[in-house]
Amino acid sequence: MLLCDIGNTTYHFFDEHQSYKEDAELFMPSSVKEEVFYICVNKQVRELLKPLKNWIDLSEYVDRKNYYDTMGIDRIMACEAIEEGVVVDAGSAITVDIVKAGKFEGGFIYPGVRAMGECYKNISAALAYSFNFELDLDKMPKNSRDAISYGYIKLLQSEVKSYKMEIYLTGGDAFEFAKLFPASHIDEMLLFKGMKNIMKKANIC
Amino acid sequence: MLLCDIGNTTYHFFDEHQSYKEDAELFMPSSVKEEVFYICVNKQVRELLKPLKNWIDLSEYVDRKNYYDTMGIDRIMACEAIEEGVVVDAGSAITVDIVKAGKFEGGFIYPGVRAMGECYKNISAALAYSFNFELDLDKMPKNSRDAISYGYIKLLQSEVKSYKMEIYLTGGDAFEFAKLFPASHIDEMLLFKGMKNIMKKANIC
Repeated sequence: MLLCDIGNTTYHFFDEHQSYKEDAELFMPSSVKEEVFYICVNKQVRELLKPLKNWIDLSEYVDRKNYYDTMGIDRIMACEAIEEGVVVDAGSAITVDIVKAGKFEGGFIYPGVRAMGECYKNISAALAYSFNFELDLDKMPKNSRDAISYGYIKLLQSEVKSYKMEIYLTGGDAFEFAKLFPASHIDEMLLFKGMKNIMKKANIC
Repeated sequence: MLLCDIGNTTYHFFDEHQSYKEDAELFMPSSVKEEVFYICVNKQVRELLKPLKNWIDLSEYVDRKNYYDTMGIDRIMACEAIEEGVVVDAGSAITVDIVKAGKFEGGFIYPGVRAMGECYKNISAALAYSFNFELDLDKMPKNSRDAISYGYIKLLQSEVKSYKMEIYLTGGDAFEFAKLFPASHIDEMLLFKGMKNIMKKANIC
């Protein structure tokens, strides 16, 4: 049995022992013969998978009334992974979601590192810096690089800390953001945990 | 005597009684015969003004040691306008600067409304919403438009409020942000006040 989280550019597989990635443009899902329980945010791939009987879309087993209609299935799975806390999924966007007593309580979306860097650069070439994740966030900045770094990083840190909950960090930039939340749980496999929880609830594993 | 704040697209004049704007591409500064005290962030215009004796660059009268080298002259003038407080200048970027006992204490830069809207749109077409400035920021969002609005607006609001200082709002989007800071001072002429203060200090008015 395989789990698979399909994004816009990759198939991310997990088989209990290891995780590995395949390029979404090159990989042929019909080459897999065993059962694959997946989530997918990529519309084209979803169409490709529909006729394949051994590819099972876990989004159909989610109790959607706990979430909102346009909420990404990856955010939902991250929330399903925990009983209580705040999930910070740092990818192309950063999603911050609150879970209390197993129930999604709302969340917000902030730009990811690359998108926010582009954003500042598009405002002015004078703001085309990489973010300084080593910045002392207790001091007000006095140079341009720190001024944009503070604007991006400190505001997110303050908001997330303000919930006074356990923090679960996941996504491609989790390790970068771990510097801001030293007591957080970093878990690259958080979405897979959520997927397994959904399977348990649905009695399909 | 005229004051003029020159940006990338406009000359913004102030003559004690009224303020008015001229298009930076069309306006001929040599057409003005009286004395003009100006600040200018537009390099091309600055070159154009150098040979004109009646155009006086106020940036030369600023005590630069209070500020940092790459800090925009418009930010500096806004800081010079107040003795104590936080200046929020909401333009293409939002600059947030702290002044204590007449001294600049540091500040940060956050994307302006248009730039941040583009930023979310560039991450995903599913995030291409206008921001909801009417959002109840005491509740965690449960739909996509509110999720990005909260990410953009609430984080800025919390940071600015955390200083527990008087808030001075200026810039093209000042009225939009006034909803977030109901007790703030909105002053579209803040930069001109700063320019006048510099002139007083330098005994040139």
